[in-house]
Amino acid sequence: MRNVAIAGAGMTRFGKYADSGLKELTREAVNAALASAGIDKSALQVAIVGNAAAGVITGQECIRAQVVLREMGIDEIPMVNTENACASSSTAFQLAWLYVASGVYDVALALGVEKMFSPDKSRTLAAFSAGVDVEQLRGLMEQLKPPSEQKSGAESGAGKSRSLFMDIYAAGARSHMAKYGTTKEQFARVAVKNHNNGSLNPHAQYRERYTLEEILASPTVAEPLTRLMCAPIGDGAAAAILMSEDRARQHTTKPVWVRASTLVSGSDHRAEHGGITARAARLAFEMAGVTARDVSVMEVHDASAPAELMLYEELGLCGEGEGGQLVDSGATEIGGRLPVNTSGGLLAKGHPVGATGVAQIYEIFLQLRGEAGERQVAGARVGLTENGGGMVRGEAAATTVHILTV
Amino acid sequence: MRNVAIAGAGMTRFGKYADSGLKELTREAVNAALASAGIDKSALQVAIVGNAAAGVITGQECIRAQVVLREMGIDEIPMVNTENACASSSTAFQLAWLYVASGVYDVALALGVEKMFSPDKSRTLAAFSAGVDVEQLRGLMEQLKPPSEQKSGAESGAGKSRSLFMDIYAAGARSHMAKYGTTKEQFARVAVKNHNNGSLNPHAQYRERYTLEEILASPTVAEPLTRLMCAPIGDGAAAAILMSEDRARQHTTKPVWVRASTLVSGSDHRAEHGGITARAARLAFEMAGVTARDVSVMEVHDASAPAELMLYEELGLCGEGEGGQLVDSGATEIGGRLPVNTSGGLLAKGHPVGATGVAQIYEIFLQLRGEAGERQVAGARVGLTENGGGMVRGEAAATTVHILTV
Repeated sequence: MRNVAIAGAGMTRFGKYADSGLKELTREAVNAALASAGIDKSALQVAIVGNAAAGVITGQECIRAQVVLREMGIDEIPMVNTENACASSSTAFQLAWLYVASGVYDVALALGVEKMFSPDKSRTLAAFSAGVDVEQLRGLMEQLKPPSEQKSGAESGAGKSRSLFMDIYAAGARSHMAKYGTTKEQFARVAVKNHNNGSLNPHAQYRERYTLEEILASPTVAEPLTRLMCAPIGDGAAAAILMSEDRARQHTTKPVWVRASTLVSGSDHRAEHGGITARAARLAFEMAGVTARDVSVMEVHDASAPAELMLYEELGLCGEGEGGQLVDSGATEIGGRLPVNTSGGLLAKGHPVGATGVAQIYEIFLQLRGEAGERQVAGARVGLTENGGGMVRGEAAATTVHILTV
Repeated sequence: MRNVAIAGAGMTRFGKYADSGLKELTREAVNAALASAGIDKSALQVAIVGNAAAGVITGQECIRAQVVLREMGIDEIPMVNTENACASSSTAFQLAWLYVASGVYDVALALGVEKMFSPDKSRTLAAFSAGVDVEQLRGLMEQLKPPSEQKSGAESGAGKSRSLFMDIYAAGARSHMAKYGTTKEQFARVAVKNHNNGSLNPHAQYRERYTLEEILASPTVAEPLTRLMCAPIGDGAAAAILMSEDRARQHTTKPVWVRASTLVSGSDHRAEHGGITARAARLAFEMAGVTARDVSVMEVHDASAPAELMLYEELGLCGEGEGGQLVDSGATEIGGRLPVNTSGGLLAKGHPVGATGVAQIYEIFLQLRGEAGERQVAGARVGLTENGGGMVRGEAAATTVHILTV
């Protein structure tokens, strides 16, 4: 396998774009990535595109890559459409890496693009539900009802006014609180940090800062989650251009190397603790020849604030049940020992599902090149991204971990 | 890159399955492939699943692989969901080949699974329409109206009672007739051949034989296509298990080798003749180190009978405009110089869109192992599959060519 570099990357600002479709978002992100790599679109040899929800939102299935790229004059190259729910574009990134690492192509485009915002809100909710087994949906919603709604006999809101996944995250958070004494304040502190980071990121959907009190006082989504602890609904695109080492050296003096790319699913019945994120990370550290201690900066899948806290444990940043103490210590803030979600994360940067994986890689790309502006982590040399997607029968459908270095 | 073998393959019979969903179809095809390879499901290391239309038909997006495979107890391995319209599972096959050829995994499952049949016929038609740019749909339908419907001022039937793609194929057929004098009878002869082959295939959706007169007398879909010249709507699944050479030799004495795997899109503006199928084939012949003359048996994408005739020309079986003469000569019948679509092709075996690519490979796998029963091609040593999918602005969205050998 050959060494593979990211030679360029770009993204749109995430947000709700009533007037931009998948094509417009694609054009902006891909042009930014091409400019960043210093190449013309004619240099691309293969494109892999991750999108999770266009079938439900717009009816476009089958050939989303070709539809969005043909519009900007990219054609006559092989194109692959991938899905893996919220991990759709990190899966696309793995395939792009594989095409280049194996020697099949020298220059590959990995694109994630998504419109989650729809004037018809039921479509947005249906799009989230498509990330679980749709035949199991009703039972799952019933099972996830927060205690307050069970008591009141209220119908579960999962299919009505909030994403099913927020019920899943809320149930996980309640269980963590019961088992380890983690507090709602500790979850809220993650949100304070990420909204603060987002305020420093021009590509973030939300750029406001909030106090701990404001996070806690925002409307309840599903106990213990408040609205400001949940990733917003939004649209956007992110693109990365991968090259073989020889080709990358012709185009950039600042390549960012892909040292590990892992994709897993399931629950890891073999593991004492953690599950598949721990497994994906273990495999990635092995592949890259580094340890968690070597990592300078990390983007993780904080679709909710508690998710980030629990990922600290799965990724080995602290022991089991110690996520709350870690966030209290400030270690994961910019300036701390290991800054996490410097981009603002999904909470503040936003979470256009299929675009998130490559957007995480974009942030690490900037950090490792020293181009992250006000949110730059000093001396960042090793970065990690963790991106999770979907759920089947209580098991994660897809989790990817990528390790990048200068 | 390492040598890659197909160690096992299996498929369901194609058909309209009112009582079987994606999970049941998957179970049958994957179990057949596992049995064929002589391995347990626990030996699988990665799965790539092609499906084109479940989002439109059932609302299941994002994680179709995980949903269908978890049900049969396959989990905790990396899974990738791919789409490329009618070429979805040949794209999955390419990725499976890439994972094994590159050395990342030793045992990969490529699966294609599709339900096109829905009690709500409008969903089936919407699923086909999702294979073009849905924003261009209305204009495309208008442009493709057969002359008879233009004259009568009738509304195009594309969105109503037939797949849009049949209008595309009919327009292509009319143009071939006008340019080269090809006749409707010659197209019908392709259908006679493929229905005859299908009658010999226990996995074919339709197993009736028809005379030339019966093909011509079946109801008109869009001039010059009659119903028996068009692939039917159906459901099904097909699976292949790919292994590294070392691993394959442990499990089988009859490996089938993947000598070439190509995927292209666009129109090939550089080509004088043919377009992207010709390009995909050229690249594949180069990769495999064989020529069209070396091929013993071929499965091509005959979603309509005229498509097969035109593919003869693109694949170099005859010169430009000579497809009609080639079918008249009988060369592509079983017993002829180069039998094409011995399985019955899409016309008779059926065309559950996302399952077709791997189903073609299944047929060649049988032929090369001498296990094709009544339709066996004597001494078959080199096989080729061609699978096309989708259309964007008059250009093919995806075409794959695979060359397999004993």
